[in-house]
Amino acid sequence: MAEKEKLSIVMFSGDLDRALAGFILATTAASMGMEVSMYFTFWGLNIIKKNEGGIRSKGLARKMLNFINRGGSRRLKLSRFNMLGLGTWMMKRLMKDANMPSLDEFITMAKEMGVKLIPCTTTCGVMGLPEDAFRSEVDSLAGAAYFLGEASKSKVALFI
Amino acid sequence: MAEKEKLSIVMFSGDLDRALAGFILATTAASMGMEVSMYFTFWGLNIIKKNEGGIRSKGLARKMLNFINRGGSRRLKLSRFNMLGLGTWMMKRLMKDANMPSLDEFITMAKEMGVKLIPCTTTCGVMGLPEDAFRSEVDSLAGAAYFLGEASKSKVALFI
Amino acid sequence: MAEKEKLSIVMFSGDLDRALAGFILATTAASMGMEVSMYFTFWGLNIIKKNEGGIRSKGLARKMLNFINRGGSRRLKLSRFNMLGLGTWMMKRLMKDANMPSLDEFITMAKEMGVKLIPCTTTCGVMGLPEDAFRSEVDSLAGAAYFLGEASKSKVALFI
Repeated sequence: MAEKEKLSIVMFSGDLDRALAGFILATTAASMGMEVSMYFTFWGLNIIKKNEGGIRSKGLARKMLNFINRGGSRRLKLSRFNMLGLGTWMMKRLMKDANMPSLDEFITMAKEMGVKLIPCTTTCGVMGLPEDAFRSEVDSLAGAAYFLGEASKSKVALFI
Repeated sequence: MAEKEKLSIVMFSGDLDRALAGFILATTAASMGMEVSMYFTFWGLNIIKKNEGGIRSKGLARKMLNFINRGGSRRLKLSRFNMLGLGTWMMKRLMKDANMPSLDEFITMAKEMGVKLIPCTTTCGVMGLPEDAFRSEVDSLAGAAYFLGEASKSKVALFI
Repeated sequence: MAEKEKLSIVMFSGDLDRALAGFILATTAASMGMEVSMYFTFWGLNIIKKNEGGIRSKGLARKMLNFINRGGSRRLKLSRFNMLGLGTWMMKRLMKDANMPSLDEFITMAKEMGVKLIPCTTTCGVMGLPEDAFRSEVDSLAGAAYFLGEASKSKVALFI
């Protein structure tokens, strides 16, 4: 049997618009029968953090970082026209009007379609993020070598 | 006869500098005999909007979005050092000094070299952009599946 | 003998976080036996500028640009939470705590591992950057056609 075609994406950005672009591509690819890996690093980790509760991390600097950089799919902002939240709120309304899923729903859909959601070990270490900071759809942590291995076997690899 | 090598680019950003980087790569690739598709989504749609006239869209929220997010190749700003337009103006002058085409000229050149310029159906729907919002060089709208199909057949696929 | 697998990266951004992501991927790929090219363009050129001394360029506009856009690995800022330098300083401290190399050390490491560091001829021309603006690890300038040639032979090509 022929091997499935693959798509691998580095999710670097924590902007709502880039997160949506990533999940639109990932779920479309999965619906076309492609195997999809999303690799979350730096601010991209914010996309897959739990929306509820605080994040327990060690050391004052990490506690401060995880307080100001709280993250969670419902807290992300547009990279442009955030306008103190008004622009982000309007974009969410426009998406709803167009019957598009919310980012939250996209994450659940992606998981159900078999998309792998993998946080980057190195950035989690630097930022002091424990595995339980992430929502239930998220798979185990892996290093950059894992992403490069997947990407080498992929038809398409993107950095978002 | 051997098939042509392909380059596929997602143009996500509406920054002048990223737009230029995309068109430099696209026109260089076309001049090397590669087949090139540029797929415009989110703020990247601003690059290929008409510079003249207004954009007719339905609903108050969409009208407001298309007013503040007017777009058009001549209205784009640098991602850094815009400095109320001074930086962007200076960069354009430096490009002219170096005999580089303007973004406007790049778009026309790209089209003449056979580069496909495709707006994303989904974002056009969400933002309420009619097909006549785009300049004459632009091809028909297509969905994310189209981009993924092209990218799968490409030697190089980039997200800008 | 089998040819080595390749990774090609366009380094467009001059943000500290994106620069780090690029060098983490590049050095990891090199340690896996991949051949790596990093192609620096636009603000990405700031990553590989010398940290010491001024930059000699011709014409008032270029002199001004190279003054406000000084660059150098130690001057880069985070794309988020720079907070007048406090956030950037804290991220550097967190990286040190986690025994990660600094960006400066990453550049030297990458060179020692055989990673090619190539500035883009076109942007150097526009910005008026002479070859001696770059640190000693940097290879000769090359145009976009060079990058596209490398990327076409690569398993993975990314735009950062």
